[in-house]
Amino acid sequence: MGILERINSPDDLKALTPQEIRQLCSEIRERIIQVVSKNGGHLGASLGAVELTVALHLAFDSPRDKIIWDVGHQCYAHKILTGRNKDFDSLRLTDGLSGFPKRAESPHDVWETGHASTSISAALGFAKARDLLGQNYSVVAVIGDGSLTGGLAYEGLNNAGLGKTKLLVVLNDNSMAIGRNVGAIARYLATIRTDPRYLGLRAKVVRGLKGLPVVGDWAVHMATRLKGSLKYLLNVGVVFEELGFVYLGPIDGHDIEQMVSVFQRSKKLNGPVLVHVITEKGRGYRPAECKPELYHGPGPFDIESGCIVKQNNNPTYSQVFGKTLCELAREDKRIVAITAAMKDGTGLDKFAEEFPNRFFDVGIAESHAVTFAAALALNGLKPVVAIYSTFLQRAYDQISHDVCRQKAPVVFAIDRAGLVGGDGDTHQGIFDISYLRHIPGMVLMAPRDARSLQNMLYTAIRLDRPVAVRYPRGEAEGTVQLRIEELEFLEPGVGELLRDGTDVVLIGVGNMITQCLEAAELLHHKGVSAAVFDPLYLNPLDRENLVALAEKTGAVVTVEEHVVQGGFGSAVAEILCQEAPGCLVLNLGIGARFVPHGDRLVWLKRLGLKAEDVAEHVVGFLERKGKLRARE
Amino acid sequence: MGILERINSPDDLKALTPQEIRQLCSEIRERIIQVVSKNGGHLGASLGAVELTVALHLAFDSPRDKIIWDVGHQCYAHKILTGRNKDFDSLRLTDGLSGFPKRAESPHDVWETGHASTSISAALGFAKARDLLGQNYSVVAVIGDGSLTGGLAYEGLNNAGLGKTKLLVVLNDNSMAIGRNVGAIARYLATIRTDPRYLGLRAKVVRGLKGLPVVGDWAVHMATRLKGSLKYLLNVGVVFEELGFVYLGPIDGHDIEQMVSVFQRSKKLNGPVLVHVITEKGRGYRPAECKPELYHGPGPFDIESGCIVKQNNNPTYSQVFGKTLCELAREDKRIVAITAAMKDGTGLDKFAEEFPNRFFDVGIAESHAVTFAAALALNGLKPVVAIYSTFLQRAYDQISHDVCRQKAPVVFAIDRAGLVGGDGDTHQGIFDISYLRHIPGMVLMAPRDARSLQNMLYTAIRLDRPVAVRYPRGEAEGTVQLRIEELEFLEPGVGELLRDGTDVVLIGVGNMITQCLEAAELLHHKGVSAAVFDPLYLNPLDRENLVALAEKTGAVVTVEEHVVQGGFGSAVAEILCQEAPGCLVLNLGIGARFVPHGDRLVWLKRLGLKAEDVAEHVVGFLERKGKLRARE
Repeated sequence: MGILERINSPDDLKALTPQEIRQLCSEIRERIIQVVSKNGGHLGASLGAVELTVALHLAFDSPRDKIIWDVGHQCYAHKILTGRNKDFDSLRLTDGLSGFPKRAESPHDVWETGHASTSISAALGFAKARDLLGQNYSVVAVIGDGSLTGGLAYEGLNNAGLGKTKLLVVLNDNSMAIGRNVGAIARYLATIRTDPRYLGLRAKVVRGLKGLPVVGDWAVHMATRLKGSLKYLLNVGVVFEELGFVYLGPIDGHDIEQMVSVFQRSKKLNGPVLVHVITEKGRGYRPAECKPELYHGPGPFDIESGCIVKQNNNPTYSQVFGKTLCELAREDKRIVAITAAMKDGTGLDKFAEEFPNRFFDVGIAESHAVTFAAALALNGLKPVVAIYSTFLQRAYDQISHDVCRQKAPVVFAIDRAGLVGGDGDTHQGIFDISYLRHIPGMVLMAPRDARSLQNMLYTAIRLDRPVAVRYPRGEAEGTVQLRIEELEFLEPGVGELLRDGTDVVLIGVGNMITQCLEAAELLHHKGVSAAVFDPLYLNPLDRENLVALAEKTGAVVTVEEHVVQGGFGSAVAEILCQEAPGCLVLNLGIGARFVPHGDRLVWLKRLGLKAEDVAEHVVGFLERKGKLRARE
Repeated sequence: MGILERINSPDDLKALTPQEIRQLCSEIRERIIQVVSKNGGHLGASLGAVELTVALHLAFDSPRDKIIWDVGHQCYAHKILTGRNKDFDSLRLTDGLSGFPKRAESPHDVWETGHASTSISAALGFAKARDLLGQNYSVVAVIGDGSLTGGLAYEGLNNAGLGKTKLLVVLNDNSMAIGRNVGAIARYLATIRTDPRYLGLRAKVVRGLKGLPVVGDWAVHMATRLKGSLKYLLNVGVVFEELGFVYLGPIDGHDIEQMVSVFQRSKKLNGPVLVHVITEKGRGYRPAECKPELYHGPGPFDIESGCIVKQNNNPTYSQVFGKTLCELAREDKRIVAITAAMKDGTGLDKFAEEFPNRFFDVGIAESHAVTFAAALALNGLKPVVAIYSTFLQRAYDQISHDVCRQKAPVVFAIDRAGLVGGDGDTHQGIFDISYLRHIPGMVLMAPRDARSLQNMLYTAIRLDRPVAVRYPRGEAEGTVQLRIEELEFLEPGVGELLRDGTDVVLIGVGNMITQCLEAAELLHHKGVSAAVFDPLYLNPLDRENLVALAEKTGAVVTVEEHVVQGGFGSAVAEILCQEAPGCLVLNLGIGARFVPHGDRLVWLKRLGLKAEDVAEHVVGFLERKGKLRARE
């Protein structure tokens, strides 16, 4: 690791020879592969962006110049080059480096991301602030072609392209979202990449640029000439040109010299510029080059063989969902499935294979996914929209305005509900109950194990109204039962008493039931008789049983891996404070905070949500409120 | 009203002569002007789309063919022509016709709208369902150039443009959103409209189309020829062509014959087609043609003079906001203001005039508005984002992911919070407390009158963290105090006891305080001593005073013009069920339902939220719970 050890900041890059730079890129790749093979992480995107990152840090002067990473999962080389190589072994671990840009980590991380398509809007904000405050620096947004399918990116382009505000958008085009990128824009980019005329032109453009002296007027002249020729004669990048950008490219995203040259000259242009670079996802690690989808965000793997370490014995909730949906879809031809660029992550890969005509990958476009689903549902189909809890936030309005208001029977399969581990704060699924349960007509369920997920999916498709089923990341608890004949319809608003008790009732959401059952056992040993109730439906709630249990025990404790504010505990409080005043209610969950990356169990413990914490909270609460004392 | 009276369905149109059609259009215009002058409504868009609507109903066979209206505010002629002329006098009135498409009103309304940019996604859903179910009909989305600035429209184009699914997008281009349309796409459309080459070409295209026999092959051939020539030689519509659409146009949106001809022939094309029609907003009513912004959605007006009837004596909350912001911005140069195509509606017109460089109209692009604001805030400015409660739903994820997670000090001025009257269910501002208060770090305030709005705005700008101030539509209560020196900083989480009492405390949100004060007076006459508390901050809540009042009175009643689920009452319940068990809590507000259009006071009454209802609820609740009986 000769050269990398000498790099403590981007300034150190500038002294290196071209050969040393090439060597450095190898070392960065090795470092990334080594750490991600242990910790898991976003391998493919970060490997693909190594040369691009180096070129950006050579051409620009971070942190004075601002580099904004869209999504941010491609930022590993950036972290390594900006003084964080020594900490890089802690990537994604509890209290370690985040896998995404974090302002608290480094002044080089100027904008935090995790969700896609924010970078152009952000860059415009940086640039406008710069101009209004009379400052002078470069603003660069680095956005992948996958992120370009999100409407927010277009809103950003549409606004940035109108004025003369100086900013640079680097389109990092690897033809992939997580899987192969989809949509008309993706096809358009492919046309640019592959048309032989453009390939010839590209060389000429770059030669032309290289021949230019680095002075403003010449570059402007050149750009104007390029603009004219590209737009009206050869049509390269015409969509971006019509949107007001000077388009430069496509250029080789692994040729540092070429990129630095184009970036340097882009600085001389006033107004918005888009540089189109072509990169290869997973570059430099053979297994990731061959299977970019698999190595987009793998768990730990063996570097030599490329084998990803199997972490689960049971199938994951996503897999249970995917398999069950296939089973149901065989019986009901109206079922169709929709994903927003997450075919594999959501477990829809098998469905896509078996029912290609009934499967829709809409790209990173959650809002469209939901509105599209509403229209399908109103026209006789049964759409199932599978989106992670955190990304479904992008479709909040569409769920309300298009689905629930029109009573369109769309089923939402909300994956990654709860804490997600390594991806951290931008990816935690801890808000969906709060952003869904107040939408009129939305039914909301949470399974405690594989089997209840299956029953809920089976039920959701039969309910003929908007339904969301939220389930966590990772291995499903319990046994899977794939025979459709054995699945059960769950009566809306009817829960299940799993354990009886007289002092207190614990009510858990989904997999928190496991913690509640363990807590009840611990409480039993402390002489507290705790009932455990699974509501199954978070909305509508089992009001009758809830009030009866509240009146019987006089103390209700809710437990959720979710914010308390507006969440499940809040729904219970709404009912009980009205219907059973005098009953003690304790809402356990996540306080008003975002939760960083790290091991889920460690964070559950820190948040006081493991069984022993629940038991302790319950005893403390009952004692404090005089309930236990009074009983003695 | 000769001809219009004979039109009971679109079929009746087809028997008319061209001259009768022209006469009919005049009669429709007259009818629209007459009703909107009484009831208020979306005049400009509906007047501009009269010929387009007639042409669509002539060329297509609704409801078998599906016509999807983006936003839907241009649907008045459609309503009049589809059997609803007789009810048209009730437009926007309580229990009358809605101002937007409503499935329950007519089989011709196949998709409900109100928010912008959903039509292309919906049309793709309709078309895919049609194809999967083996049906055969046309699907037409009618979208304005304003709606085209929304990211959802682009997501729809990107998905619809990829495949061969047959659908028609009619781009109704009047160069206006509510005000003049903004963004690079708007500029691009303007180029098409005004380039003399295109104007010449247009005639040729239309002549070409008219000369074609109505058979599939010829039309396809023609379209291919058009595609080639337009895209590569003359560049008209190339952005849409590159997105996969066959682009036809631009054509005159007031020339019915031309439109019918192009629509008829578009049916013969397989795959996505975009027809670009140019219309004039407000067409046929001189004042609306001259001042399209003012007549976008006017209240009642005098037809002869064009004078809009002044409805308020006091300034509106929007005006108070706008004026106060100007005042503050004179003192603090870091203040900038952002609107999403609602400069006038949000009261920012004066700000835009006085501080043109610090004012940003981003178009109908709420998501971008918020992410852009986050970046401005992180770079030393103080952005104030003014968006209606219902439209801010579009930016839920950006508020969480970009603003609050990064602790960016953005101020949200949430206008139209509460019931909005004539616009109805798609526009009610009754969810914002629920979708905001659970986002970690979000401060939320609601003013009870003009002066408290001013103090809250003053405070929000000083808090240096994300803050939202929500205020209602219409006239502000109380007196306005515009001198900045007299404004007060409001300590976060500290409320105000407005009236003391011993039996019950009424806690109201914003202007519901008025109802609470009146209710307390009514209760006083019934022998119930009611305190009234204004929390000022909905988040963080004044926990200390809340618990003290709960303990003192033993009964808390919350009142909000907002859904109860996850709303303000829910926040109070979360606290009290834990901190003051035994205290009775009653949450008054809107149950889990959408609320239709109609007079706000009528709906307040129906929802049981007027002072006398509150008083009645309180007495009933206290009696039912034995509190009043026990006291006697």
